[in-house]
Amino acid sequence: MCGIVGVAGIPDAAQLVYLGLYALQHRGQESAGIISIEPDGTAHSHRGMGLVNDVFPPGALARLRGDVAIGHTRYSTTGSSVLANAQPKLVNYHGGPLALAHNGNLINAQEIRADLVRRGSIFQSSSDSEVLVHLIARSDARRCEDQIRDALERVEGAYTLLLTVGQTVFAIVDPRGFRPLSVGRLGTGWVLASETCALDIVGARKVRELEPGEWLKIEHGRLIDLPPLASATPRRCIFELVYFSRPDSTVFGHSVDRVRRALGHALGREQPAPGADCVFSVPDSSNAMALGFAEETGVKLEHGLIRNHYVGRTFINPSQAARTAKVRIKFNPVQDVIAGKSVVVVDDSLVRGTTSRELVQMLRHAGAREVHFRLASPPITGPCYYGIDTPNRGELIASSHSIDEIRAHLGVDTLGYLSLEGMLGAVGAEDRYCHACFSGQYPTAIPNHPGTRDHEPLPLVAD
Amino acid sequence: MCGIVGVAGIPDAAQLVYLGLYALQHRGQESAGIISIEPDGTAHSHRGMGLVNDVFPPGALARLRGDVAIGHTRYSTTGSSVLANAQPKLVNYHGGPLALAHNGNLINAQEIRADLVRRGSIFQSSSDSEVLVHLIARSDARRCEDQIRDALERVEGAYTLLLTVGQTVFAIVDPRGFRPLSVGRLGTGWVLASETCALDIVGARKVRELEPGEWLKIEHGRLIDLPPLASATPRRCIFELVYFSRPDSTVFGHSVDRVRRALGHALGREQPAPGADCVFSVPDSSNAMALGFAEETGVKLEHGLIRNHYVGRTFINPSQAARTAKVRIKFNPVQDVIAGKSVVVVDDSLVRGTTSRELVQMLRHAGAREVHFRLASPPITGPCYYGIDTPNRGELIASSHSIDEIRAHLGVDTLGYLSLEGMLGAVGAEDRYCHACFSGQYPTAIPNHPGTRDHEPLPLVAD
Amino acid sequence: MCGIVGVAGIPDAAQLVYLGLYALQHRGQESAGIISIEPDGTAHSHRGMGLVNDVFPPGALARLRGDVAIGHTRYSTTGSSVLANAQPKLVNYHGGPLALAHNGNLINAQEIRADLVRRGSIFQSSSDSEVLVHLIARSDARRCEDQIRDALERVEGAYTLLLTVGQTVFAIVDPRGFRPLSVGRLGTGWVLASETCALDIVGARKVRELEPGEWLKIEHGRLIDLPPLASATPRRCIFELVYFSRPDSTVFGHSVDRVRRALGHALGREQPAPGADCVFSVPDSSNAMALGFAEETGVKLEHGLIRNHYVGRTFINPSQAARTAKVRIKFNPVQDVIAGKSVVVVDDSLVRGTTSRELVQMLRHAGAREVHFRLASPPITGPCYYGIDTPNRGELIASSHSIDEIRAHLGVDTLGYLSLEGMLGAVGAEDRYCHACFSGQYPTAIPNHPGTRDHEPLPLVAD
Amino acid sequence: MCGIVGVAGIPDAAQLVYLGLYALQHRGQESAGIISIEPDGTAHSHRGMGLVNDVFPPGALARLRGDVAIGHTRYSTTGSSVLANAQPKLVNYHGGPLALAHNGNLINAQEIRADLVRRGSIFQSSSDSEVLVHLIARSDARRCEDQIRDALERVEGAYTLLLTVGQTVFAIVDPRGFRPLSVGRLGTGWVLASETCALDIVGARKVRELEPGEWLKIEHGRLIDLPPLASATPRRCIFELVYFSRPDSTVFGHSVDRVRRALGHALGREQPAPGADCVFSVPDSSNAMALGFAEETGVKLEHGLIRNHYVGRTFINPSQAARTAKVRIKFNPVQDVIAGKSVVVVDDSLVRGTTSRELVQMLRHAGAREVHFRLASPPITGPCYYGIDTPNRGELIASSHSIDEIRAHLGVDTLGYLSLEGMLGAVGAEDRYCHACFSGQYPTAIPNHPGTRDHEPLPLVAD
Repeated sequence: MCGIVGVAGIPDAAQLVYLGLYALQHRGQESAGIISIEPDGTAHSHRGMGLVNDVFPPGALARLRGDVAIGHTRYSTTGSSVLANAQPKLVNYHGGPLALAHNGNLINAQEIRADLVRRGSIFQSSSDSEVLVHLIARSDARRCEDQIRDALERVEGAYTLLLTVGQTVFAIVDPRGFRPLSVGRLGTGWVLASETCALDIVGARKVRELEPGEWLKIEHGRLIDLPPLASATPRRCIFELVYFSRPDSTVFGHSVDRVRRALGHALGREQPAPGADCVFSVPDSSNAMALGFAEETGVKLEHGLIRNHYVGRTFINPSQAARTAKVRIKFNPVQDVIAGKSVVVVDDSLVRGTTSRELVQMLRHAGAREVHFRLASPPITGPCYYGIDTPNRGELIASSHSIDEIRAHLGVDTLGYLSLEGMLGAVGAEDRYCHACFSGQYPTAIPNHPGTRDHEPLPLVAD
Repeated sequence: MCGIVGVAGIPDAAQLVYLGLYALQHRGQESAGIISIEPDGTAHSHRGMGLVNDVFPPGALARLRGDVAIGHTRYSTTGSSVLANAQPKLVNYHGGPLALAHNGNLINAQEIRADLVRRGSIFQSSSDSEVLVHLIARSDARRCEDQIRDALERVEGAYTLLLTVGQTVFAIVDPRGFRPLSVGRLGTGWVLASETCALDIVGARKVRELEPGEWLKIEHGRLIDLPPLASATPRRCIFELVYFSRPDSTVFGHSVDRVRRALGHALGREQPAPGADCVFSVPDSSNAMALGFAEETGVKLEHGLIRNHYVGRTFINPSQAARTAKVRIKFNPVQDVIAGKSVVVVDDSLVRGTTSRELVQMLRHAGAREVHFRLASPPITGPCYYGIDTPNRGELIASSHSIDEIRAHLGVDTLGYLSLEGMLGAVGAEDRYCHACFSGQYPTAIPNHPGTRDHEPLPLVAD
Repeated sequence: MCGIVGVAGIPDAAQLVYLGLYALQHRGQESAGIISIEPDGTAHSHRGMGLVNDVFPPGALARLRGDVAIGHTRYSTTGSSVLANAQPKLVNYHGGPLALAHNGNLINAQEIRADLVRRGSIFQSSSDSEVLVHLIARSDARRCEDQIRDALERVEGAYTLLLTVGQTVFAIVDPRGFRPLSVGRLGTGWVLASETCALDIVGARKVRELEPGEWLKIEHGRLIDLPPLASATPRRCIFELVYFSRPDSTVFGHSVDRVRRALGHALGREQPAPGADCVFSVPDSSNAMALGFAEETGVKLEHGLIRNHYVGRTFINPSQAARTAKVRIKFNPVQDVIAGKSVVVVDDSLVRGTTSRELVQMLRHAGAREVHFRLASPPITGPCYYGIDTPNRGELIASSHSIDEIRAHLGVDTLGYLSLEGMLGAVGAEDRYCHACFSGQYPTAIPNHPGTRDHEPLPLVAD
Repeated sequence: MCGIVGVAGIPDAAQLVYLGLYALQHRGQESAGIISIEPDGTAHSHRGMGLVNDVFPPGALARLRGDVAIGHTRYSTTGSSVLANAQPKLVNYHGGPLALAHNGNLINAQEIRADLVRRGSIFQSSSDSEVLVHLIARSDARRCEDQIRDALERVEGAYTLLLTVGQTVFAIVDPRGFRPLSVGRLGTGWVLASETCALDIVGARKVRELEPGEWLKIEHGRLIDLPPLASATPRRCIFELVYFSRPDSTVFGHSVDRVRRALGHALGREQPAPGADCVFSVPDSSNAMALGFAEETGVKLEHGLIRNHYVGRTFINPSQAARTAKVRIKFNPVQDVIAGKSVVVVDDSLVRGTTSRELVQMLRHAGAREVHFRLASPPITGPCYYGIDTPNRGELIASSHSIDEIRAHLGVDTLGYLSLEGMLGAVGAEDRYCHACFSGQYPTAIPNHPGTRDHEPLPLVAD
């Protein structure tokens, strides 16, 4: 997963992009980058591995001059966590400097790439996004929006894009609209961001979310609607609401906090835990769901687990981790809340089950008499091909185990999932969501090669 | 404020100290350090500025060999945030290598230091803790516990200490017991830590907390009680329970989470907000207090503010910070919860009022109809001389303003503080707490020079 | 200028390339890089700005596994001293991983690059060498040697190349043979290097120098002669012998030391300094020339100037440099040798005259009674387009000033240059040298744009 | 060995000290440091491991404000190459900030240190120089010159010192005057340096060298002679002239270049090599000696060995070094000079013989018919206790082998050393030199513990 931010028509645009990326840090912690463009077309790039704060030391921002800038944070994926894959990507093509920030995943990138390489293109990274750059550079069209359109007609999958050619900014959402993008106004300039929390942090006023297939051009301070891409049935990613986006954002027209509260209520209705002494969340992503569950069922709300927020980047010695449960690094139980009690634990979703199993053992060790595990979404049975870094199907516990097997594996007294209908009901039940990871109903052909982002790993090791 | 951890009698002790420091990261983010001692007496030191994770890169721990180790995290204080002041301090004296980790503050360090310097001692830092090292080295006593006792008889103030001389570990709490220290058992070894959450993370079983004036020696795997220091009336720091310690810790015999819930109940009783639509905390330190308030008053609990946990180390350009309220970097309101509502905001305490004022403005901007501010502790009217980095008296808003003036300054509809009696009632009301910052009843003489930690700044700039 | 080294068929080939680069450090101090290829085709790259020692810290070499490796050191040129331009360049093209190290300069790179960009190629650097990579990738030929030949038929200028495609190594010298390349044998493997001193350092036995237009292929341990490139009149760079190469190397069939001694003898014959008390060199490049001069003329040899060999990387504060002559950082006179004497100073060549002027002032200040300046090559009147970083014509003092004007500018009593005939006589006088910078007889068309290496500076600033 | 520089009464004094250290880089490459003092007494320190250029990046000097500064470069000694031992040392004592730079070695430091530690002093380093600091701080005298004199009366050995107390500078040479120190004038300010080449580089005019036992005070711009230390027979280190100092310096009243030429002449007289084809030096320290030898004997001077001046900091893989002779990294023979010839090699001195043996093998491999090795100083039979880092007696080849055994070990046809009388004759033969390493006539008691600089290694590993 990734987060993207763009600013146009505001002095020191990179400063605002930096703040925006910082608000979107949860969408990607592997690498971060900003590219700015000065009025004379000079482009500046700064990218690095790590968190936004680590990538941009005091002073780095000062060099990113210009009133146009785009930025990107990238999630850690297996195997190709290298600077070459960090975004935004900046290249010179015959139309001038071109920068690109991409949230999503192209499912036919590998085929196109093989064709381009055969014809003499030289790739700099293993990222699917670079395919777009080469397609644009190879287009015979004269206007850059036509070059971009030529390129987009070749690709399939999920792409929410911020692109600059010179000082012109393009904002594009693929026809199914898997990933969100909002546009806001700040003074006489424009701010674009994956989530509204990034508009809030810079003080921009939200204008609207982009619709599936929509694309905008910002030039000389004016926002222009370009003809939309070929239409398709919208397939908004429901996992953005369940887990990925921040609760203070508005995504796909919904307050994320309110959706999660509704998911908690639905979970309480479908999967109550009569007789339990208390309920608590696995903080922080399921806080709203646990509160909803408590409101719905009347079970007393507690804070049973404390999360250590410094955890993100801890180096733990493997042998040490063997002795101490790894989960203790992240969570610690509140003994006085748990000892001797029958507790309900609410989490947003269950992927591999590894962490949850350790969590349950920790709660038992802290004296929990009964543990009732509740999940505010259905079993995850398939991988995502549209930009969320779920593991392979084989590692998804619900793809090959029954609910009772999972219950036994976790070591809980009862286990309850929210149903697909219950989940969709909480977001209005319209047929505009992608829920393929839960339902197996993939909105596109499935790629032959199940790898997600990074096709054809380069047989070379960069400096 | 600082956090300290010690381990004795366990192979690769530094690995456990590292985990323990990591659990105590909230007690100090300025610098961190670990000193380990091998069975042959060889001592290894690694210290650095920044978070535990930054200070100890993969590999640094491997060099900290030995089955005895002590560690320290230090809070950022004004003016002398330099490596020379990082702890633990390791020196060679005539008794061999001596390491010291200190939580607290000595109120007569400046006078003693001046005397030592006059007699030819050369100081390496501006920290008050170094005074102890020189006093020990200058003692005429032959046994090292007598040297330490000689030194401690000279100093006054707050000191919870972990000291090693060779492989012998000493754990000492000053006669008033301002700062906490617990001892735990792990296999055949011992673990000491400021808070029990650091025992939990390494899987140690809590044995007990040290009493005021108590000191322990651990030698050859055995824990020995040494004769206590001169007795005094216990003065446990109540701010540890109100704000400083982690909710999953047990401190001064209390579950911090349960104390904070009780503070929330008491606040609800003393300062209800009839007619409010909802209540929420300023996350995360007041979460339990807001829940207690909601339980007591029946006002609906919400999550109205979302905290960005990546905030700790963000560099914000000053001019940028001027445009965007600084508070937005840390908190963002959930629009749908707040717009048009009468809201109660619960916080643990109020120091300068700057952040709270900006927070209130942000809530107003998000559409709050009424804002009722509630504080789960009394007005802070004086600085702390015992190790908490409160600002000078002049910056404490309650030292010079009435509650109504503060209400107007914050821009809230109503403002309610918990009373001193209410606060003490929540912790059992016994006369064993220091509440000087709230009550002005300082348990020691007040130093003439109100600076706290760092006396006599060196007129030199180290490399 | 640059230095290149290649090794094939020897385990840990990168270790030998490292030593070879180290011996060629004088050919380029701006950046260094090595690319190694394992038997399974996996390529490893490590490049960096700075000296060989700085670029390859302990451990970096260990990661450069494989029995084939090529390396490059690059000279500092104005304006584009960036990592992107460091070599060897490693890319993936349809034939697999391709690595390239280039010594020389292509005079038509800019035109070809513009054409390639128009057709959709994306360049990663501003270096002329990248043109070759794209031409190879765009070739329709099937065999990689044919692809390379297609590419070379498009370019004009100076190129001595080491290229790898998979584990196959190609060594190529352009038809005029501007830059040297020797091949040596070490056990059952092969070593290629710009100068023989790099064969010496790894203990390789010199087999031969490559002739102009020659190219070799090394595959499966066998060295194969490929059909030569289209023939042309050889134009070996005479400046390699006069200044650039190390005196312990054999270049273009000559011992550099012996050539320089002969230049000194010729200079003594043409430009004696009767009555002088002593002669000394500007160390170290003209040591052999001064000795030859002394032998020829009978003037007593002295060491009048001491060179500080730590100078290369000194940061001198500009305002400081204004006060102290910059030349003092590099050279210091031996007072007792110079005071009251009539001295002859021998240097290899004179470019701008700035340093020499300061040197003369320093000698006068040290008490020299008379200063006779002697140059062991003719006046430099034109820039080099073939890989030596001479300044623009306007900065070459001899392009616009008479010898007497130069004498007055330097402030010397007499000034004597070696004649073109004298210089050529010292190397055998055959018509196989490029001496364009002295004679204006350029062996190719002169590019319109007088910039040398770095065409079309990218309007972007890389990270 | 070390180099020291001091500047007083000149704005931005640290800039000049930096240049001076740079000229003294040959006296110590392990670490470097500068301490500056502002008019208000504020002291600034910057020290680091490595070369002067590495230690002071652009910008570091700017922070070293003040018109008084002292600097130090330190030679690499075995075992305690750590930042804590870098100089100048800066501490706060009761007299204010005190900085010290020391060239030499105290032979009774270990005993004094043990006594000070017993009395409660805490040492920060393992360097002998720190003893002086503690002695000064412990003195009961009131004036700082009396405190310093008290300290110096306790120590024995070699010490050339630059000391600052506040803005007052003291320059002191021990009564035997082992190490040189010159004072120069620059405008209205003063410059002090180990060698005159450091005066030259800043453009200072030499005033005089300090005599043994002399000490100067510079205060308020005035240079004041203080009463000298107790007198003793001068014992100037002859190795400064033979090897250590730069040829462009004047040391102990002699031009180093002229002394070395005279040593070469004496060597030619005592140890000619009749019938040899040519003579060359092991560059650069014996260049003048080889020239003198050639002049004396009429044997033709050549440049047979080329030195790679980038060698200082090369990391060579040990296994690689086994395959290639290590000496090749530093020197390469000129084949055409050597092949088939009878050669004379002149070096300044022979310590272990390891490098020379490899050098001879390299010359044989390059085809030398006969090798005649000549040394311009006598056999080294004992270690230095006065600041030169000679190895232990056991590693000195001449301490336990006859000249014929050494000849066989080196593999040369003949071996000739200059005699003690011959060496002393070249410097005027007065009885004012220490030649203990050649003659065994140590001017002080020899310490029991033969370790030189670093007594009592701390059993702790600093960060």
